[in-house]
Amino acid sequence: MPHITLNSDEPGVRGLFLFRPETARPLNELVDVLLRAPSTLTPGERELIAAYVSGLNQCNYCCSAHSAFAAAQLPGGMPLVQEVRTDAAGAPVSAKLKALLEIAAAVQRSGQEVTEDAVAAARAQGATDLEIHDTVLIAAVFCMYNRYVDGLATVLPEDPGFYDERAQKIVAFGYLGALAQARR
Amino acid sequence: MPHITLNSDEPGVRGLFLFRPETARPLNELVDVLLRAPSTLTPGERELIAAYVSGLNQCNYCCSAHSAFAAAQLPGGMPLVQEVRTDAAGAPVSAKLKALLEIAAAVQRSGQEVTEDAVAAARAQGATDLEIHDTVLIAAVFCMYNRYVDGLATVLPEDPGFYDERAQKIVAFGYLGALAQARR
Repeated sequence: MPHITLNSDEPGVRGLFLFRPETARPLNELVDVLLRAPSTLTPGERELIAAYVSGLNQCNYCCSAHSAFAAAQLPGGMPLVQEVRTDAAGAPVSAKLKALLEIAAAVQRSGQEVTEDAVAAARAQGATDLEIHDTVLIAAVFCMYNRYVDGLATVLPEDPGFYDERAQKIVAFGYLGALAQARR
Repeated sequence: MPHITLNSDEPGVRGLFLFRPETARPLNELVDVLLRAPSTLTPGERELIAAYVSGLNQCNYCCSAHSAFAAAQLPGGMPLVQEVRTDAAGAPVSAKLKALLEIAAAVQRSGQEVTEDAVAAARAQGATDLEIHDTVLIAAVFCMYNRYVDGLATVLPEDPGFYDERAQKIVAFGYLGALAQARR
């Protein structure tokens, strides 16, 4: 049961968005820019970073949701997402993405854990300054979302198809578009 | 030296805002709503939560900045901010604020660390659901900001008066207003 009385039965962060629309707007705008706007990292790669960090934070709702969002947008689908979450270094993704996932894992522990060596390693695999910036910010953003969702003890969806359904909405309409639909 | 090449010499998060204006906008909108919009918690109390969490994350830039912003808006000024940062339980702030600071400290460790008892204790001191919600989200937001600022190894300001000058701008113009001025 959530720590506070929400105004809906929506699970996870969705219940929080409906409870506090004033913060929901910038929170969704932020992930729309970071995870869906044009970028040299694909939406699937960026969702993979979000799912990976959420897994490290053991945030069941966010990890399940962004794993589904990543799977829907990566040729390797859910098996690839699960390989990355289990063993990022050994998973069949590009060397650049592996180096970025290592930076994301450092951010999950603490900002001070990101070393010059880790950044140099990503750069040696072709990562640009913008990709490194966005990786650090995506990882930091999910350290926020994970704490928000679990810190208020939001509930998990009862329907096992929930995450795949959300994935289709996010892919079709983006985060702000899906948020606008939820309010109708 | 920052891990990436920024397009200004601005310290801390300000250099990141100028480097990536697309994410700067929602990031500033979020803190304007959480720290400055009308609320039953004063702006000084909310900045105190931000400073306290940033101190727990040992983020020098954010802790110095939000300590200055809190001090500028609290009757107790910087001595009170420093007392809270050193010993929140013993500091001369309301029992409600102490209980909220305890929730914020739990969020800093992990969302899962926020207990029903901690929430009940805040409620017993008169905290509302919205205040508990906003405390959790403010704490989570600074776990993001702290990782963003330190994860990219941004620099500290050379001028010791920097933080007080920023405090005056934030108090006068808000976060979005101060951001718009920085871009001119």
